[in-house]
Amino acid sequence: MAKTNPGRFFEDYRVGDVIEHAVPRTVSGGERALYHALYPARHALYSSDEFARRCGLPASPLDDLAAFHVVFGKTVPDVSLNALANLGYAEGRWLKPVWPGDTLRSTSEVIGLKQNSNGKSGVVWVRTRGENQRGEVVMDYVRWVMVRKHDMDAPAPETLIPELKPALEASDLVVPEGLDFSDYDFTLAGEPHRWGDYEVGELIDHVDGVTVEEAEHMMATRLWQNTAKVHFDVTAREDGRRLIYGGHVISMARALSFNGLANAQMIVGLNGGAHANPCYGGDTIRAWSEVLDKAETPAPGVGAIRLRLVATKGGEPFTRKGDDGKYLPHVMLDLDYWALIPV
Amino acid sequence: MAKTNPGRFFEDYRVGDVIEHAVPRTVSGGERALYHALYPARHALYSSDEFARRCGLPASPLDDLAAFHVVFGKTVPDVSLNALANLGYAEGRWLKPVWPGDTLRSTSEVIGLKQNSNGKSGVVWVRTRGENQRGEVVMDYVRWVMVRKHDMDAPAPETLIPELKPALEASDLVVPEGLDFSDYDFTLAGEPHRWGDYEVGELIDHVDGVTVEEAEHMMATRLWQNTAKVHFDVTAREDGRRLIYGGHVISMARALSFNGLANAQMIVGLNGGAHANPCYGGDTIRAWSEVLDKAETPAPGVGAIRLRLVATKGGEPFTRKGDDGKYLPHVMLDLDYWALIPV
Amino acid sequence: MAKTNPGRFFEDYRVGDVIEHAVPRTVSGGERALYHALYPARHALYSSDEFARRCGLPASPLDDLAAFHVVFGKTVPDVSLNALANLGYAEGRWLKPVWPGDTLRSTSEVIGLKQNSNGKSGVVWVRTRGENQRGEVVMDYVRWVMVRKHDMDAPAPETLIPELKPALEASDLVVPEGLDFSDYDFTLAGEPHRWGDYEVGELIDHVDGVTVEEAEHMMATRLWQNTAKVHFDVTAREDGRRLIYGGHVISMARALSFNGLANAQMIVGLNGGAHANPCYGGDTIRAWSEVLDKAETPAPGVGAIRLRLVATKGGEPFTRKGDDGKYLPHVMLDLDYWALIPV
Repeated sequence: MAKTNPGRFFEDYRVGDVIEHAVPRTVSGGERALYHALYPARHALYSSDEFARRCGLPASPLDDLAAFHVVFGKTVPDVSLNALANLGYAEGRWLKPVWPGDTLRSTSEVIGLKQNSNGKSGVVWVRTRGENQRGEVVMDYVRWVMVRKHDMDAPAPETLIPELKPALEASDLVVPEGLDFSDYDFTLAGEPHRWGDYEVGELIDHVDGVTVEEAEHMMATRLWQNTAKVHFDVTAREDGRRLIYGGHVISMARALSFNGLANAQMIVGLNGGAHANPCYGGDTIRAWSEVLDKAETPAPGVGAIRLRLVATKGGEPFTRKGDDGKYLPHVMLDLDYWALIPV
Repeated sequence: MAKTNPGRFFEDYRVGDVIEHAVPRTVSGGERALYHALYPARHALYSSDEFARRCGLPASPLDDLAAFHVVFGKTVPDVSLNALANLGYAEGRWLKPVWPGDTLRSTSEVIGLKQNSNGKSGVVWVRTRGENQRGEVVMDYVRWVMVRKHDMDAPAPETLIPELKPALEASDLVVPEGLDFSDYDFTLAGEPHRWGDYEVGELIDHVDGVTVEEAEHMMATRLWQNTAKVHFDVTAREDGRRLIYGGHVISMARALSFNGLANAQMIVGLNGGAHANPCYGGDTIRAWSEVLDKAETPAPGVGAIRLRLVATKGGEPFTRKGDDGKYLPHVMLDLDYWALIPV
Repeated sequence: MAKTNPGRFFEDYRVGDVIEHAVPRTVSGGERALYHALYPARHALYSSDEFARRCGLPASPLDDLAAFHVVFGKTVPDVSLNALANLGYAEGRWLKPVWPGDTLRSTSEVIGLKQNSNGKSGVVWVRTRGENQRGEVVMDYVRWVMVRKHDMDAPAPETLIPELKPALEASDLVVPEGLDFSDYDFTLAGEPHRWGDYEVGELIDHVDGVTVEEAEHMMATRLWQNTAKVHFDVTAREDGRRLIYGGHVISMARALSFNGLANAQMIVGLNGGAHANPCYGGDTIRAWSEVLDKAETPAPGVGAIRLRLVATKGGEPFTRKGDDGKYLPHVMLDLDYWALIPV
């Protein structure tokens, strides 16, 4: 057993450690096709090379969330194999589009540690960077997880809680080079609603639902080379159920949000996110959004919109937390992100 | 909710309207691989670039039915979101092969309207055209659907029932440029039977069966960006079952027909089709064919064969309708098409 | 029914027959993406073009087992449609990598025959070769199957049992042209263990498990154009269960073996293999390995390691056969192969 990876435990992390994650990955048209088979993805910029060219890009990039999943997947064996909970995300930025043929790799820097008062686990903050084969950072984000200790006698590290922005400023966002929405085709995009048509505070029920299957979430999770046992092995948890990778719920909800947000084309910022309740095979995922903020960008015709995306199974749309401030049981995801949209 | 697409209702259609459907789609080797993973597709011309070259084409095109599904899928949000029934197809023609890298878009012209006598719904006929990025029409077909009215007080439109050919003539068929079966390799194609070996009236039981799974039909239907709720959401119908996209049954039956019709390589005409009974996850699809007609084409070595393709779940092969002229309950599909086959 | 393929029966084989199998297949990035979606495949050389280049190859080839499945799948309609059992493999060699864009075809030569004493069936040995579009043999292997007789009165052929090596010698192995592990990146590969770190007799429990779904194994098996009814049709067997293609278990176990054997990058030899017990949807596959042998190769930095790979469902790791010499009921696969690993 000495040769297999036991994962890292809380006491194995030191602030400042940089972990180079294994198994780089070259993506192709195959990943794009699979992404569209696994999610009802319809944002035109990721569906059509011609549409992407009309928006100033050389071709249709890999879906923004697919890029996130690839970068994230590589971190799992080093960061979350012994995680008790995935606590949050912050300061996520998409810095360069990922093109078919690109090879992605990930590194994570430990930027915070805090042992829990029970002495049996602690919280680890990492800033993860995804790089392409030219050494360009294509995205980075912070996430924090609660990790078990293995050696309960290991001393508690000095507590360091990193300062993280509650949300990215519009000026933090990076618009892909060349992006230009001044000749945007709203007909082909599928909806007429532009930046100016959305108001802060507006709520959108995305109407459609998808009942998820075990084969689908496992195929998705494997495609991103995410190895966490709980997604694949019915014997890994006491209840005999496979827990669906939280990223599957993110992608499903984002794809469903096309209906009402068809022009929120590219995700460029991840302000925060909570996997509020687990998702299992057989659940029917629905989604609603709230407009949290709007901003201008320097790119021609390109505005930014900050959205809350909530994925639910059952329950009334637009309900999120109870009177006690806790997530209601039907809420699976509460994501806060910035997207680019034609003005 | 104002921003989501409610779909069109019967009173929203006018004869002569041209609807430009959204979300163009670039296809790649990923779509081909997925098509072969979802269906037991073995027609050699769509499986091997080398085989396609020996048949005079520059490479293996996207499967003819995959091209159909992409073109069709784009029409769903505008044509069949509020459809009560998909009533028929006519005058379908494949005009140009679709190659990896091509981007497809669809437009539909309303060519007929007839309000039902109950005043609550009506029949809409559309002629849909799929175009590639060079503006070439790659296929066109007529389909008609029964659509709900939303405003029951909307006046009935003038009835116009388009004149449609009961079947395409051989002279209507377009043989792909360069196609030449004079050096056709029957061994690599998988069967020795050529055009001359089939007789009008001949019946072929394709023997094999495939039990279909929810994950598969949803992946297929999403890949074509078909958004009809009933295929994905167990809460969309009273019986809690997901209705399988009729096109999934078409592709499954066509793939099964390889066994007996391995040389009926390319579909070039769709004369008509009925989705006789619904298909659900767990059903085992089988298929049989009847030779309806044969014709010559001007292309070297290329003949045309008109086939009835029937997909069933259970029941005796070659049974189709009862004494009352209605489809028997085990019949799911009755399709009438022209294919190209070596003489 | 005369036009469909009934498959060959025992009396239809003659020693020396060469069967050219139908339906050549062009592979692309789509097959790679699907392979990674269907199996938790993480060997870096098949995941990253950049990693493959650092190992002296022009790009990442199609996964070695995917190449095997494509070549194998073509033989099914001619060799195993009426097979009662897949008895064994020997002398399998990977001779050339398969690249995206390559087109594969297969031929099999009958090299042995032995009628069973009951007169109702017999064993057929074939040597199968997979060729690319340049006529280069990319792999060859021997397999033997028990096939039903159709005409019980057909005379028994002369018995010929081919002499087969119990295992390939290291000198039989073909290292891909250009392969060079002297600048191998162990960090990106995922584990530090090199050739010198493994000892003959060493046992490795690969820890992880995957619960398999019907949709997945059917998609995989179709992708390889394997048409055996028992994998797809619940009515094909009396118990109403779909038997999972043995190759699905091989690929799943090999992918799981990454955890402990991440550097056993390329499979180059197949010494033998037994599908000890059937696998069904819902089974949870685990794997363990035993180091059987080690050898040097002439390629820079490249060693060879001979491994036993055992796939199980339940049961204790490292158990394989009972006191009676028979496989224990939880053992599904016992495979003996050579892989290339950095020294």
